Amino acid sequence: MDAIAVRKGEHEPSVIEVPKPEPEANEVLVRTLRVGVDGTDRELLEGGHGEFPAGEDYLVLGHEAVGVVEDSNGTEYDEGDVVVPTVRRPPNGLNRYFERGEPDMAPEGEYSERGIVGAHGFMAEYFTSSTEYLVKIPNEQAPLGFLIEPISITEKALCHAYASRSAFEWEPESAAVLGNGSLGLLTLAMFVQSSKFERTYCVGRRSRPDPTVEIIEELGATYVDSRETPVDELSNEYEGMDLIYEATGYAKHAFQTIDALAPNGVGALLGVPDSWEFEIDGGRLHKEFILHNKALVGSVNSHIGHFETASDTLDSLPESFLDSLVTGVYGIDDWEKAFADDDTTIKTAVEFSAYEER
Amino acid sequence: MDAIAVRKGEHEPSVIEVPKPEPEANEVLVRTLRVGVDGTDRELLEGGHGEFPAGEDYLVLGHEAVGVVEDSNGTEYDEGDVVVPTVRRPPNGLNRYFERGEPDMAPEGEYSERGIVGAHGFMAEYFTSSTEYLVKIPNEQAPLGFLIEPISITEKALCHAYASRSAFEWEPESAAVLGNGSLGLLTLAMFVQSSKFERTYCVGRRSRPDPTVEIIEELGATYVDSRETPVDELSNEYEGMDLIYEATGYAKHAFQTIDALAPNGVGALLGVPDSWEFEIDGGRLHKEFILHNKALVGSVNSHIGHFETASDTLDSLPESFLDSLVTGVYGIDDWEKAFADDDTTIKTAVEFSAYEER
Repeated sequence: MDAIAVRKGEHEPSVIEVPKPEPEANEVLVRTLRVGVDGTDRELLEGGHGEFPAGEDYLVLGHEAVGVVEDSNGTEYDEGDVVVPTVRRPPNGLNRYFERGEPDMAPEGEYSERGIVGAHGFMAEYFTSSTEYLVKIPNEQAPLGFLIEPISITEKALCHAYASRSAFEWEPESAAVLGNGSLGLLTLAMFVQSSKFERTYCVGRRSRPDPTVEIIEELGATYVDSRETPVDELSNEYEGMDLIYEATGYAKHAFQTIDALAPNGVGALLGVPDSWEFEIDGGRLHKEFILHNKALVGSVNSHIGHFETASDTLDSLPESFLDSLVTGVYGIDDWEKAFADDDTTIKTAVEFSAYEER
Repeated sequence: MDAIAVRKGEHEPSVIEVPKPEPEANEVLVRTLRVGVDGTDRELLEGGHGEFPAGEDYLVLGHEAVGVVEDSNGTEYDEGDVVVPTVRRPPNGLNRYFERGEPDMAPEGEYSERGIVGAHGFMAEYFTSSTEYLVKIPNEQAPLGFLIEPISITEKALCHAYASRSAFEWEPESAAVLGNGSLGLLTLAMFVQSSKFERTYCVGRRSRPDPTVEIIEELGATYVDSRETPVDELSNEYEGMDLIYEATGYAKHAFQTIDALAPNGVGALLGVPDSWEFEIDGGRLHKEFILHNKALVGSVNSHIGHFETASDTLDSLPESFLDSLVTGVYGIDDWEKAFADDDTTIKTAVEFSAYEER
């Protein structure tokens, strides 16, 4: 069968021929519908992140998948069920993080990540998965089910961010997303949809006219061009933010966020940067942290509960937003377009087979 | 009556004569028993922190007090009740933070702090306080009641730190206190007493023999000399820490803590540093934050609920620890000794009057 993979030493994906997988005990065979492309895939291709499966010289890409159960293999699933797989798998038998259903909290070495770290992903005509790492979603979500994984990433991050503010009566009014990529925009739409915030902002580095700026403004949020207003000037130019969601991986943002937060605010860090040395006024930031009860939480991956919530969230997002967000879904003959990285591309997916209601 | 105050332009406290206060409606008159001295008092004297009351050229010191109600002034208090005052007061009438009982979450400008920011403290023979800012404690706690305020600071910080880890099953085993001052040692004793941690550490910069190192080791904790093992080497030399409590105000600690934490760990920042620019590998720290789900929370002050818990905690701390911690309680004739800052001084208090059970 066809799969989209990156080969060792290469920086571009290719279509390769791999054997169709056969489900083992407690696994089902899933016919892949669509698989989303995101920043992590691009980081993988650049070589900054990820790991090939042991003993293999290629990695099948893709961790944002939706598919249909083709062979339920005697499990509780039915053929025709629409499913989304989670990403992390136990590397050498279960460990305590997987046992308690929190693989997202496992430290390095205690997980593999399908399509990212040491395990093949879902960009293939079929994949198998143990049933415990699948979430059944409504059939109607088949077309956009590939958005559930990225939404689940934000569900988890917000869970941790809100928990950090649960020891007092937190009354957030303002929230800012740093980054107008697809995860940033999805998160912004979630902020708007949740009605938790009176004012929302999204920070990017694009000039109008730009499709992401249009989406931001259609959502009712304020677009901030960080070339004019750097993140540490947000509180002076606009207002201190009760919640900041960092989705760019620009390393200085982690520290500028401390200044950009309102008193008692929290910053959630999501975008993974590379090593970068720079100077900060660490004393002032440290003091600001304390005297205004601020918090920063890092967040990676998500667990099955976050995927379930994400499925509900997907239903709640405006159709017009989702239409503008997904700029292209490409068949296997056209797959390279899904990896385009230009200013008109926001969110793309590769379609391996069409969904047909039974 | 006598009060210990710092005058504008001076860096040493003096005994001054001030009028005995008279309680207004809903206030009681408290005869001061003892008032503790801490790092904040020293910062005030150095001029790095704090603010004189409007229109006054002196500030009565002291925010760690215990006293006896001398005139209950028609309130629900009885004369003879042993009380501890909280520190923050509303500056210009109540605001929402005070209304909801969380003055510790008020931003700058929305509070004064008795003995620190814009309001006289408790280092005087008498003080008055509105009853809502007093906590009644058992008579037996009169001698060491001045420790309740510093303990409450840690109660709040831990509350926020634990909240930040409440979105998953956190199983902390190791905790480190940065700083072997009186707040650091009190916190270390609280860690040991709570039985939450299997291994505890306290980081200082003192050579043996040293009374704080003796206390640390008597508590069963490991003393780490940061001149040999800097904080960012803790995880290599000992282990990654599930919880770190920063009580020195050394600005680099806030950032070194990110490295010193175990995966899923949290750092609570308490010690307030001055401005200080330095270089960090911000990219690596940002990445470490994310990939290991770490958190940092800043914490300042405490509310009445934390004082109530602190009173219970004080009862639970070993008597031998408290005996070693409190190195001196000095009468008004000897008060200068309470401000000594040498290696044999750990925690001191000024005694304004002796407690006599009625």
